Amino acid sequence: MAATAGGPRLRAGLGQGSRGTARHGLTSASGPAAARRSRPRSRPAAPPPELLLAAAFVSDAQYNRNIPFKTSPEAVRLYYLYNHWIMRTATYFFIFLNLSLAVFEEPAVYPLPFLATSLVEVLCLLVFFGRLTHFAKITPRNVFWKDTKNICIMVAILLSLTDLAIYGALRIYNIKSIRWSRIARPIFLINFAESRQIRRAFRSIRNTLPEITYVFLLFMFSLLMFSLMALKLFGERNLQTAEGLPYFRNYLEIVFDLYVLVTTANSPDVMMPAFDFSSWYALFFIAFVIVNTYIFMSLFLAVVYNNYKKHLKNEIRKLAYMKHRKMIEAFNLLKEEEGAQPVVREARWKQLVKLVAPDISNSHRELLLRISDDEQKGFIDKKSFVQLADLLNIQVITLKIRSHPLGQWMPRVYKSAVSQFLRSMVRHRGFVWTYDAIILINAIFIALDEETPYISYAEWVFLALYIIEILLKVYTYEPRVFFGKNQFWNWFDTLIIFAALTATILNTTLRSTTKYNSQQILDIVFILRVLRLIRIVDSIQRFRVIMNTLINIVPTMLTFGGLTLVVYCIFAIIGMELFHGKIQFFPVNSNAPYALECGNPALKDSLFARGKYCKNNFNNFASSFIVLMELTVVNQWHDILCGGRPAKLYFIAFHIVMVIIIVNIFVSFILEAFFVEYSLEKSEVETAIEQKIQDAGCGKWLVFKIASKRYRTVDALLQRMFEAEIPPEDEGPSFEEILNLSPTAAGPSHLTSERAV
Amino acid sequence: MAATAGGPRLRAGLGQGSRGTARHGLTSASGPAAARRSRPRSRPAAPPPELLLAAAFVSDAQYNRNIPFKTSPEAVRLYYLYNHWIMRTATYFFIFLNLSLAVFEEPAVYPLPFLATSLVEVLCLLVFFGRLTHFAKITPRNVFWKDTKNICIMVAILLSLTDLAIYGALRIYNIKSIRWSRIARPIFLINFAESRQIRRAFRSIRNTLPEITYVFLLFMFSLLMFSLMALKLFGERNLQTAEGLPYFRNYLEIVFDLYVLVTTANSPDVMMPAFDFSSWYALFFIAFVIVNTYIFMSLFLAVVYNNYKKHLKNEIRKLAYMKHRKMIEAFNLLKEEEGAQPVVREARWKQLVKLVAPDISNSHRELLLRISDDEQKGFIDKKSFVQLADLLNIQVITLKIRSHPLGQWMPRVYKSAVSQFLRSMVRHRGFVWTYDAIILINAIFIALDEETPYISYAEWVFLALYIIEILLKVYTYEPRVFFGKNQFWNWFDTLIIFAALTATILNTTLRSTTKYNSQQILDIVFILRVLRLIRIVDSIQRFRVIMNTLINIVPTMLTFGGLTLVVYCIFAIIGMELFHGKIQFFPVNSNAPYALECGNPALKDSLFARGKYCKNNFNNFASSFIVLMELTVVNQWHDILCGGRPAKLYFIAFHIVMVIIIVNIFVSFILEAFFVEYSLEKSEVETAIEQKIQDAGCGKWLVFKIASKRYRTVDALLQRMFEAEIPPEDEGPSFEEILNLSPTAAGPSHLTSERAV
Repeated sequence: MAATAGGPRLRAGLGQGSRGTARHGLTSASGPAAARRSRPRSRPAAPPPELLLAAAFVSDAQYNRNIPFKTSPEAVRLYYLYNHWIMRTATYFFIFLNLSLAVFEEPAVYPLPFLATSLVEVLCLLVFFGRLTHFAKITPRNVFWKDTKNICIMVAILLSLTDLAIYGALRIYNIKSIRWSRIARPIFLINFAESRQIRRAFRSIRNTLPEITYVFLLFMFSLLMFSLMALKLFGERNLQTAEGLPYFRNYLEIVFDLYVLVTTANSPDVMMPAFDFSSWYALFFIAFVIVNTYIFMSLFLAVVYNNYKKHLKNEIRKLAYMKHRKMIEAFNLLKEEEGAQPVVREARWKQLVKLVAPDISNSHRELLLRISDDEQKGFIDKKSFVQLADLLNIQVITLKIRSHPLGQWMPRVYKSAVSQFLRSMVRHRGFVWTYDAIILINAIFIALDEETPYISYAEWVFLALYIIEILLKVYTYEPRVFFGKNQFWNWFDTLIIFAALTATILNTTLRSTTKYNSQQILDIVFILRVLRLIRIVDSIQRFRVIMNTLINIVPTMLTFGGLTLVVYCIFAIIGMELFHGKIQFFPVNSNAPYALECGNPALKDSLFARGKYCKNNFNNFASSFIVLMELTVVNQWHDILCGGRPAKLYFIAFHIVMVIIIVNIFVSFILEAFFVEYSLEKSEVETAIEQKIQDAGCGKWLVFKIASKRYRTVDALLQRMFEAEIPPEDEGPSFEEILNLSPTAAGPSHLTSERAV
Repeated sequence: MAATAGGPRLRAGLGQGSRGTARHGLTSASGPAAARRSRPRSRPAAPPPELLLAAAFVSDAQYNRNIPFKTSPEAVRLYYLYNHWIMRTATYFFIFLNLSLAVFEEPAVYPLPFLATSLVEVLCLLVFFGRLTHFAKITPRNVFWKDTKNICIMVAILLSLTDLAIYGALRIYNIKSIRWSRIARPIFLINFAESRQIRRAFRSIRNTLPEITYVFLLFMFSLLMFSLMALKLFGERNLQTAEGLPYFRNYLEIVFDLYVLVTTANSPDVMMPAFDFSSWYALFFIAFVIVNTYIFMSLFLAVVYNNYKKHLKNEIRKLAYMKHRKMIEAFNLLKEEEGAQPVVREARWKQLVKLVAPDISNSHRELLLRISDDEQKGFIDKKSFVQLADLLNIQVITLKIRSHPLGQWMPRVYKSAVSQFLRSMVRHRGFVWTYDAIILINAIFIALDEETPYISYAEWVFLALYIIEILLKVYTYEPRVFFGKNQFWNWFDTLIIFAALTATILNTTLRSTTKYNSQQILDIVFILRVLRLIRIVDSIQRFRVIMNTLINIVPTMLTFGGLTLVVYCIFAIIGMELFHGKIQFFPVNSNAPYALECGNPALKDSLFARGKYCKNNFNNFASSFIVLMELTVVNQWHDILCGGRPAKLYFIAFHIVMVIIIVNIFVSFILEAFFVEYSLEKSEVETAIEQKIQDAGCGKWLVFKIASKRYRTVDALLQRMFEAEIPPEDEGPSFEEILNLSPTAAGPSHLTSERAV
C-alpha cells in the first residue's frame, strides 16, 4: 500500500477518502499484483509547488469545490490542511454540537447547568472563529471581505458572545431574560464553506421568492375575497359550529378558518353548519376548495418547480464551467511544449494523479493513463487532460479473476464433484428464488403470534437457514469479491442476519437467566427481520427503476434534512420562547390536577384535550421538533395550536415556510430526480469516457468494471448531461463570468426548444 | 349578412359557430362596408360534391375532428348534418338528462314516479341509438364495427333496456331489486364522438396505469412492511387510543390506519398512544410519513406527470399530422395544373372558404387570400393551402376605424372642448386608478356592518359611481368596439353592475312593500359586488401571467369536470346502493329519536356524530356528490366513513382512483399549463402566419388585429409549437401510421435532449 501513496505529508493532506467515491477496487490485497506494483520508480521527496497547486486545482475540480485560494505555496499547503477530512469533520461536529445545545439548555430535555452549556458554546464559537481565520489565510483578502458568508459567521459569533455575556450577567442578578441569539445558531450550518448543498438550496429558495410572492399575493387576495363572501353569506344567520361557538361572524376568524381549509385540515367541519342550513351552500365551499386548494396549491408547486429546474440548470452549468476552468488552470501549470502543441508529459501526469488520488491502485492509474493517452505517445494533450477530473470520479472496480482461497488451500476438496455441484446450485437462479420464498414465509411467521412455542422455535430455523445461505455464498464466490465495496446487498444481508442472530441470542440469554424479555432488543430484531423483505422487491426488475430513484435520492435528501433542520431549529426556539410550559403532559393514571386537561384548566373539553394531544407541546427541544413535524404533515394543526393570535400567526408563518416552500421544493426535487432517472433508463447515457474505460479495461488477468449505475446522484447525472453539450475545446467563460451567469442567459431559443419537445 | 353566406342548405350544415372561435369581428353591422360587400359574384346554386368533400376535410382539420367518413356525396351530406351544432347539443342534452335521472330515481332528491323516469330513460336510449345509427351511415362499415366506442354504446343501450325491463317486471310483483345498469350511464358521456377530450384523458389514465401499478405495488409493500413493524412494536403493549379502543392489535386494522396516515387524515391521532408511551416511537411515524406520504406520493405525481407529458406530446403530434393529412386530401381534391405545379385557383379557394366558414366577413376572407397568395398570382400552392386550417383558427378582430355614433349624430356637442376634455380624462390612467380605489373602498364598506343606515345608503352611491363609469366609457370609446367579442372585462363589469343594480332595486322594492328581505337576492348581490375586485388584480401586470394561466386552464378544466363527473357518478351510484339510509339527517331541534346520533344508535359517541356529520350521507345523489367531494379533499375521511369493511374498501378504492390518479393528473395539467404559459411569456412564440396577418392587416380604413393571446388554450399552444418542428413540405405519415404512433417513437435522442436542457 505504501508503494502507491505519495509523500506521507501529502497523503495526510489529500486523504479525503471519505468524500471521494470508491476509487480503489479490490486490489489493495497482496497477490501476484504486488510484485508488479513495487517496481522502483523515480519520485521526488517533496513535490514541487506548481505540482501541488495543480493537484489542488484538479482535486477541487473532482469534488466541485469552489473556494478561491491564494496560489502561493504557503497558502496551497494551508488549503490542503483546510480540506483535510479531519478538519471538515471537526467543523461539522462542532456545528452540530452547537445546535444540539438546545437539548440541554432551559427548557431542557436533559438539563445541564448553565455554566456547562455556556462553556461548550464558547468552545464551539472559538472553533468557528479558528476555522474562519484559517479560511482567511487561504483566500485573498478582498475576496474574503466581500463574501457575505464570512461576514455572517463573524456577526453570528459576536452576537452569540454578547447574548451569552448579557444573559450570564443578568442571571447572576436573578433577572430572567431570553437567549435570543440561539436563533442565529443555524447560521453556522449554512454559512461554512462545507455546506455547499444547503446553501444552494437556500439560494434556490431566495431566487424563487419573488415569483412565489406574486402567486401568494394573488392567493391571499382570493382568500380575502372568499372570506368577504363568507362573512356576507353566513355571518348574519346565527349559525353555530359543532362545539356551539358562533360560526363565521368575525372577518379575521373567517380568514383564518378558510386558510385552514386550504390546507384541508378542517375540511368537512368548517362546512357542516352552513351545509346543514342549506345544501346549496356546499357550492361555496366546493368552489373555494377547487380554486384555492387545488389550483393555487398546484400553482405554488408549478412556480417552485419551474424555478427549481431553471436554477438547477444554471448551477450545474456554473459547476461544469468551473470544473473545466480549473482543469485548464492545472494544465497551464504543468504544460510543456511538444512540437507546437502544449502537453503534459506522462511522468508529471502520474505524479499529479498520485497527489490527487493517493489511494488508487497502480493498475487503475495505468488504466486512466491508457485512456488519457490512447495513442501511447508519452504525453497527454489538453483535451484529454481536462477529462481527468471526470475520470477520477468514475467508480471503477478492479475485478481480479482469482481463484477462491479454499481452492488454493485444499484444491482436492474444493474441486470435487460434490463441491462443484454445490457451487453450481448456489449460482442457479432457483437458489435466489428459494430464499425469497423463505423470507416470505418468515414474514408470515413474524405476523403470527409470538407466544406459540412452535413459532419462536421456527425463528431459530430461519436464522439458521439465513446463515447457511451466507456461508454457501461465501463458499461459492470469492469472499473479497462478495464483500466488495459495491456489493451493497451482500453487506446489507450479512449485517442484518448477524445483528439479528446476536440480538436473539442476547435476548434468549437474558430471558433464561433473568426472566426479563428485553423489549428494546426484540424491537430491533423485529425491524431488522422485516427489512430483509426489501431484498425481494429489489430482485424484480420493474421495481428496480423506482428503487434506483429512491436510492439516488438519499444523498440529496440529506440536503433537505439540513434545510429542514435549519427551519425547525429556528421555529422550535421561537416556539419554546412563546409557548413553553403552557401545556403539561402527565402519564396515564396520573393524579395531578387537570391531568386530562394537560394541566391547563382552559383546555377543558377542547378538541386538544379530547384528542389526548398533551404531549404535543413546546416544553423542550425534542417535543418542539415533533410538533413541528406534525405541523408539516398539516393535518389537525388548528387543533394542535390552541392559543390565541400569536399561535395562529406562528403556525401560518410555519406553514408558508415549510409546507408551501420547502415541501414543494422537496417534491420538485423528487419529480426531477425521477425524470432524470427515467430518461437515463430509456436512453442509457453512456459517455465516451465510460466506453473507453470499458474498452480499455478488459484483458489479462485484471478486469475493470464501471461500478453499478444505481449509486449515481441526480446532480452528477445532470452535470454529465450538460457537459455533453459543451464543446471540449471551448475555454468557457472566465471565473468572473461564470459567477454572474443568470438562468435566463441560456437564451430564448433554448427555452422554446425545451418546451417544444 | 345574407350576401356573405353560402347556400341556405349549407349554411345550416356548416354554421357551427358555437364551437368555432370568434372568427368574425365587428364587421357584421351596416356601414360603408356593406356597399362593397354586396357586389355581385358568380356563385353556383349548389356546390359540386368534391368541393363539399374538401370543405368537410378542411373543417375537420380546423376543429381537429377525426371521424373517418365515407366520401360519397350522400355520406358527406349526412356528415354535415352529423356535425351540425343542433345535433351535437341535442346529444349532450340527452346524455346529461340521462345522467341526471339519478336525481329523480329512488333514492331521490326530488322523487318522480318510476314510470316517468323510465320513460325518459327509454327516450334517451332511443336518441343515443339514433345518433349511433346516423354515425353508422357516415362511416365505413368495417371501421364502424372495429371501433370499441360504438360497441360500448350498443352494449350499454342493451344492458340499460334489459335492466329496465327486469326491474319494471319485478316491481310489478313488488320484488325489490337493484338498478345495476345505472353505473353504465357515464359510458354515453365518454364514448360519443364529441367527448374527444374526456376520452383523451381516459386514454392518458389507461396509459399511465401500468407504471402507476408498479409504484403502487411498491408503496403497498412499504405499507405492509411498516404495518408489520408496527404490529411487533406496539401490538403487545396494551395501548389504547384516545377513544379507549385497543391500539394497533390487528394487522389489517393497522394497515388501514397507516393507509389513512399516508393521506395524513389521522395524522397526530394515530401516533399519540405510542408517542405518549415513549417519545422514541415518534421516530417510527416520522420515518413512515417521510417514506410514504412525502416520497411515495411525490413518486405518484412524478409518474403521472411524466406519462401525462409523454402522451400529451404524442396526442398533439397525432393531431398535427392528421390535420396536415386532411389538408393535403382537400388540396388533392381541388388541385389543377398550373405549369408543372399543382395549385388551387383563387375562385375555388374562395368558394371553399365560404363553405367552411360562412360567417366570416368578405374583408377577412380577402385578408386570408392575401396571406395565402402573397405574390397575387391568382392561385394558391400546396404549402400555402395547407396553412388554411390554421389561418381560419386565428382569431382576427376586424377593427374598423370609425367615428363615435354621437360624433356623427351631434358633432358639435361631441367635439366641443368640454367633451374633448372629458374623453381625454377617461382615457387617462388616473381614471382607472380612481375606480380601482373606489372598488377597494367599496370592499371595505361591504365588510362593515350592513345594518348601519349610512352604509346601506353608501351602496347606492357606489352603484351610481359604477354606472357613471360605464356611461363615460361608452361615451369615450366606440360602443361596438367597447362591447366587442374579445372585450371580456368590459362585458364582465357591465353585466355585474347591471345585475347588482337590478337585484338591489328588486330587494329594496320587496323590502318596502312586503317587509321581506330576500336573502337569496342579497347573497347574489354580495357575491357580484365582491367579484368586481378581481378587476383590480388583473390591472397589475405581474399578476397577469398568473391570471392568464388560470383563464387558459378553464376550458380544459371542463374536461376534468367531465372526468370527475364520470368517477363521481359511478361511485355515487355504488355508494347509494351500499350505504343508503344508514344515516339520517335531522334539522336542529328535531325531536326524532337518536337525532344527535344521526338516527343510528350505533353511532352514539362516535366522532361522526360528535362532529355533526349527519348530513354527510349517501341518501341521495346530491348528498353523495358532496360526500365524495369531501373524500377527494381527503381530510377526516376515516371519520366520514363509519361503516365496516365494505366502507373501508369503498373509500380506499375511491382514494386510489380519485386522489392518486385523477387529482395528480389535474396537478400535472396545471404544472404543464403553467410551464407552457411561462415559456410563452418569455419567448413570445409568434408564428410566421400571425406575423403575416399583422403585416397584411394594416392599411386603409380597416385594421386587423390578432385577438388577445390570453384566450389561447394550452393544447393550441402545444400544437403550434410542435407544428413549428414539422417541415411544411413533408407529407407526413399515412392515417394508419398516425393512429399507431407510440410515445416512444420520437426516439431516444429526442428524450435525451429534452432532459439535457
